[in-house]
Amino acid sequence: MDVDASSLPIGPKGTRWPGWSGARRFDAGRPGPRSPNSRGGTIRSHTRGVDVPALSWLELPAGPAVQLLDQTRLPAEETTVTCADVPALIDAIRRLVVRGAPLLGVAGAFGVALAACRGDDVAQAAAAIERARPTAVNLAWGARRALAAYQQARQPAGKGHEDHQDTERAAARAALAEARLIAAEDAAASAAMAVHGLALISPDARVLTHCNTGALVSAGEGTAFAVILAAHRAGRLAMLWVAETRPLLQGARLTAYEAGRAGIRHAVLADSAAASLLAAGEVDIVLTGADRIAADGSVANKVGTYGLAVLASHHKVPFVVVAPMSTVDPDTPDGAAIIVEHRPADEVTRIAGKQVAPGGTSAYNPAFDVTPPGLLTAIVTEHGVARPVNAGTLRVLSAGSCNAEGPPADVYVER
Amino acid sequence: MDVDASSLPIGPKGTRWPGWSGARRFDAGRPGPRSPNSRGGTIRSHTRGVDVPALSWLELPAGPAVQLLDQTRLPAEETTVTCADVPALIDAIRRLVVRGAPLLGVAGAFGVALAACRGDDVAQAAAAIERARPTAVNLAWGARRALAAYQQARQPAGKGHEDHQDTERAAARAALAEARLIAAEDAAASAAMAVHGLALISPDARVLTHCNTGALVSAGEGTAFAVILAAHRAGRLAMLWVAETRPLLQGARLTAYEAGRAGIRHAVLADSAAASLLAAGEVDIVLTGADRIAADGSVANKVGTYGLAVLASHHKVPFVVVAPMSTVDPDTPDGAAIIVEHRPADEVTRIAGKQVAPGGTSAYNPAFDVTPPGLLTAIVTEHGVARPVNAGTLRVLSAGSCNAEGPPADVYVER
Repeated sequence: MDVDASSLPIGPKGTRWPGWSGARRFDAGRPGPRSPNSRGGTIRSHTRGVDVPALSWLELPAGPAVQLLDQTRLPAEETTVTCADVPALIDAIRRLVVRGAPLLGVAGAFGVALAACRGDDVAQAAAAIERARPTAVNLAWGARRALAAYQQARQPAGKGHEDHQDTERAAARAALAEARLIAAEDAAASAAMAVHGLALISPDARVLTHCNTGALVSAGEGTAFAVILAAHRAGRLAMLWVAETRPLLQGARLTAYEAGRAGIRHAVLADSAAASLLAAGEVDIVLTGADRIAADGSVANKVGTYGLAVLASHHKVPFVVVAPMSTVDPDTPDGAAIIVEHRPADEVTRIAGKQVAPGGTSAYNPAFDVTPPGLLTAIVTEHGVARPVNAGTLRVLSAGSCNAEGPPADVYVER
Repeated sequence: MDVDASSLPIGPKGTRWPGWSGARRFDAGRPGPRSPNSRGGTIRSHTRGVDVPALSWLELPAGPAVQLLDQTRLPAEETTVTCADVPALIDAIRRLVVRGAPLLGVAGAFGVALAACRGDDVAQAAAAIERARPTAVNLAWGARRALAAYQQARQPAGKGHEDHQDTERAAARAALAEARLIAAEDAAASAAMAVHGLALISPDARVLTHCNTGALVSAGEGTAFAVILAAHRAGRLAMLWVAETRPLLQGARLTAYEAGRAGIRHAVLADSAAASLLAAGEVDIVLTGADRIAADGSVANKVGTYGLAVLASHHKVPFVVVAPMSTVDPDTPDGAAIIVEHRPADEVTRIAGKQVAPGGTSAYNPAFDVTPPGLLTAIVTEHGVARPVNAGTLRVLSAGSCNAEGPPADVYVER
């Protein structure tokens, strides 16, 4: 199947996963500038010169579909998964083909749009998408926004009896428009976070990051990685330390790849080596993303984040979370109220398809952990910087970007 | 090559790596009782019913050799590496075919005995063995002990002009006897550490451990794992949490295997998941081994140990190191004086033979980290328990097991 011009990647120009040109083997040791004319052969390929974005909405002859860059196979292979219905999308979300808080919001919204275009039960589809992964709040948030747009468009306009099919088509268009709006907002939020976050980066900074927070998780340049890119472009980044992020190695696989393509000096480390790196004074700041931020500022993020926050605090190194306001969930009062997703044992006991622990070994495999606000130096959002992190500073940021007055006396909110 | 009765495994009966019966594929999901009559086919195999010990001294027709169970291939395959000369042994030590502080001491001593039996330059061989891995103090300690025994036996007894060949043969026998003595002492030390350590384990204990510290690293039942086994036999062990220990996965591969064979309830976790496990109150005590203990009580151990110690301290969970006195190095004054071995990047960027990070990615890959004594609750040795951990308590233990008097007023030494 060739997609050609019917591929409609989300987000503005320049926000796509850079340098992908269809399905090809990862070229070890040569992550140089992209070759716009290279073209894959074996798997679904794309029009020459069209990069593969993390998520695209396709209008195919057989109907619409959500196309996902398969993040489980990066960087070894660039392949895509095309989801023509919601169950296929939910399966892809569960398998982490698509992942990362902001992009899950986008994916949730496009999933609802897909259900609407297909004539499925849209409310039921939205509820199923929400349940696909319990911790990442953006998924439910995106699905609900698209559902609300759909439902609003279906309200009778007043007097007339509109044609039912016309109403459904209009409602589906509304859901799709809302999904595209979410993607565009996410790209803009990413750019704003980069600006706010850059103010926290000192010259010659050595940054430690965890998991993957770049263009693969966003319609823009990401969250923490957008700040890292901004620091790199501003000439302030001396070194990027990439924690490999077991069990699924998003750091070693994805962040190392993005850093390499961006020309950032970087090195990967086992997650457990971060402690001695901090002790050696080799880290100036730790930057991570977030999957859900409770009202009190507790941050659920990829497992390992909490340990890094304790270690950063022990070594007096700033620990900064970068996330859009859509990741802040005012309905989750605190860290204890965050449901942490536990994933199958074989993510730990097998690596790269190979059994490493004895077969049948049990595993403790939470996908996330929760960092209390007291261990965070700041949270960077598109509305500004919450510092210190607490319910008051987050509330002020939630109220919008132009209302800095009114934080409690012990609170300072940077804009 | 069949070894048959010429195989002379080190250590007393019952101290061998249990259940191995020659080369065979690891049987996933069936780590049941050993099958003494099973026999491998493709690789070097052993006499029926003879377990494969971690290290054996062989008297082969072609000359003596040190045979090592290849720990890099466990648990997937049970294969051995036979070292007929010192360069082969050094290569095996560097590749971690043989590893673990106490067993490296044994291996170093047998390496010197091998050089002596072959008629090599024994002092030169001992020096080369010492340099094979810089952090593990036992390696140098074992090599020097065997060298000293060899050199003492070569001293002219007095008046006569002994036959040179006789002298050399006697000196080689002395080196070999010393190596065997070190192995026997190590087995006895392991048993004594188990007794001392057991006193620190409360009923229904949930123990977290890191790396591999059992029969594979010792002529006995190991260090921390010997205490875990003792707790299990005493009915005090509710759960063993096994940190997988990236990059080389000694926890997931080896400790999970040993725990399974011993019938210990256990689960593996990504190293970075230990923080949330501690936060959840699921860990009562952390037990690890050590590769070098400085005079002030600073502990060099497998990378990740220091981070666990910081986390245990943060959560007020006891952190206990178990190591024989041979791991205490009075010539290393403090943690800063410990040389930490850095290993190749591809241990991090490749897993199980598969490239996971983009090719050419740099890595920060220290094999060890250093934990300051202030983060340790106790050090368990065969001479007793140092608590608190400091130069005074260690000095008292170094003086021998029957001299408890004289520690400084702020020091308590358990026996």
